[in-house]
Amino acid sequence: MTDITEISANRSFGGWHRQYEFDSAALNSRTRFAVFLPPQASESHKVPVLYWLSGLTCTDENMMQKAGAHRVAAELGIAIVAPDTSPRGEGVADADQYDLGQGAGFYLNATQAPWNAHYQMERFVVEELPALIEAHFPVSDVRAISGHSMGGHGALVLAMRHPGRYQSVSAFSPISHPVAVPWGQQAFQAYLGDDQTAWRQYDASELMRASGPEQHRPTLVSQGLADGFLETQLQPEHLEQAAQESGYPLTLERHADYDHSYYFIASFIEQHLRFHKEVLDAR
Amino acid sequence: MTDITEISANRSFGGWHRQYEFDSAALNSRTRFAVFLPPQASESHKVPVLYWLSGLTCTDENMMQKAGAHRVAAELGIAIVAPDTSPRGEGVADADQYDLGQGAGFYLNATQAPWNAHYQMERFVVEELPALIEAHFPVSDVRAISGHSMGGHGALVLAMRHPGRYQSVSAFSPISHPVAVPWGQQAFQAYLGDDQTAWRQYDASELMRASGPEQHRPTLVSQGLADGFLETQLQPEHLEQAAQESGYPLTLERHADYDHSYYFIASFIEQHLRFHKEVLDAR
Repeated sequence: MTDITEISANRSFGGWHRQYEFDSAALNSRTRFAVFLPPQASESHKVPVLYWLSGLTCTDENMMQKAGAHRVAAELGIAIVAPDTSPRGEGVADADQYDLGQGAGFYLNATQAPWNAHYQMERFVVEELPALIEAHFPVSDVRAISGHSMGGHGALVLAMRHPGRYQSVSAFSPISHPVAVPWGQQAFQAYLGDDQTAWRQYDASELMRASGPEQHRPTLVSQGLADGFLETQLQPEHLEQAAQESGYPLTLERHADYDHSYYFIASFIEQHLRFHKEVLDAR
Repeated sequence: MTDITEISANRSFGGWHRQYEFDSAALNSRTRFAVFLPPQASESHKVPVLYWLSGLTCTDENMMQKAGAHRVAAELGIAIVAPDTSPRGEGVADADQYDLGQGAGFYLNATQAPWNAHYQMERFVVEELPALIEAHFPVSDVRAISGHSMGGHGALVLAMRHPGRYQSVSAFSPISHPVAVPWGQQAFQAYLGDDQTAWRQYDASELMRASGPEQHRPTLVSQGLADGFLETQLQPEHLEQAAQESGYPLTLERHADYDHSYYFIASFIEQHLRFHKEVLDAR
């Protein structure tokens, strides 16, 4: 079993929030993640897990500290796992900007140098991390996935690319059509190269449009209408159109006045967790 | 009316979180504060206010982002106001340490140079800020006060020194007997000088021991038993002894495994807000 090193532990709502580090094979670097274990979790009672993918510049800490999710997860008996948003550290390629390189992994497997040496976030999130979590903690292999902004893109894309891995999907303010917006174009160009065929395989709207019933999972997307990135980077209307074309079970909710911050996430995380719980219970 | 400048606004749980700056007379400097206004607040329905005093190194942001308080405040119809933890900026005295100077105002009125030119946090929190809040926002003059660590000290001390200003008091992990611990001794020496008579006037346990019925307000204190500062800096047992001697209405709750972090505050903020609400409603 891969060794993990605990680096912090906090009692929270009767459960435990803990941070760990380990040497990731997928990322070819040391990485940190956080887990919230609800009070119900024990060796005799494994609980389902929500994987949370954060947005640009974030680490495992933003959601754990700011979303107010522990209260609801403790009530519902759901574990939460939050990976970092990219590989990090000396020797890991980076760029002098917040939206590329460290803190901006975009949850894909990079094919282009120098990024491909470490930026294998898809393999990390979908395979390595769940295997490690399920080996070390009293959690089941019943998984949900959610995220914010770049992480909302990640949640939607990884769920559709690996439908056998996740029972339910949600996203806050996702980058819904990255091939058509600056954040996505810049990242895909760097990590995947010039071939836009490769880009489309990581585009939630393109995947949703082409999806068949075997990829369909109950999906909740929440978007604030005062979000400063809504028109330039997020564009959830493309998801809506794609879902209509393919019959994908998407619920897209728009909320007047809410912005791109964790205040928005905190306001609706309870709804998301209850949505996931209902799907996970029905499995 | 003193001008205030809005510097951010976020919709949160149907209410609004906003940050403002203004030129404080008490602090002789520009300062920032945050306010959460619940959805019930309107010109025809003024709501009570909880003043929240943060701990060492904090600003107005820690509690607003991490405590998960907006959800409950929105339900109960309570506004929350969070000032900064000291004066700040160029020309404001500081020290090369986290527990003295900027970010460490200790909610007192400094008498010693160079601190006395700006460090008038008691006057700021008790007089200037509420006057400004009540002039600019749809809030009443029904006030509660709470805080964490250094801010728990501040809440207890300011409530007992100015009992006419607050209806209810609570604290998380307060520095309960600052004259006897390093954080308090260092700060009181710097800000108040050598005369320990002056120190005792800002010591919650000393004030509580000497308190009469006119100073008694319903008071809830929560302390985690895995708090790394419990024995060296916090020492809530002194509050308990003082309350027994004077008949002060103190409820002190100890919680196994919880530490000094905002995970502890988040886990019990709902209890604190409901405690305040009950007292405020009974007024």
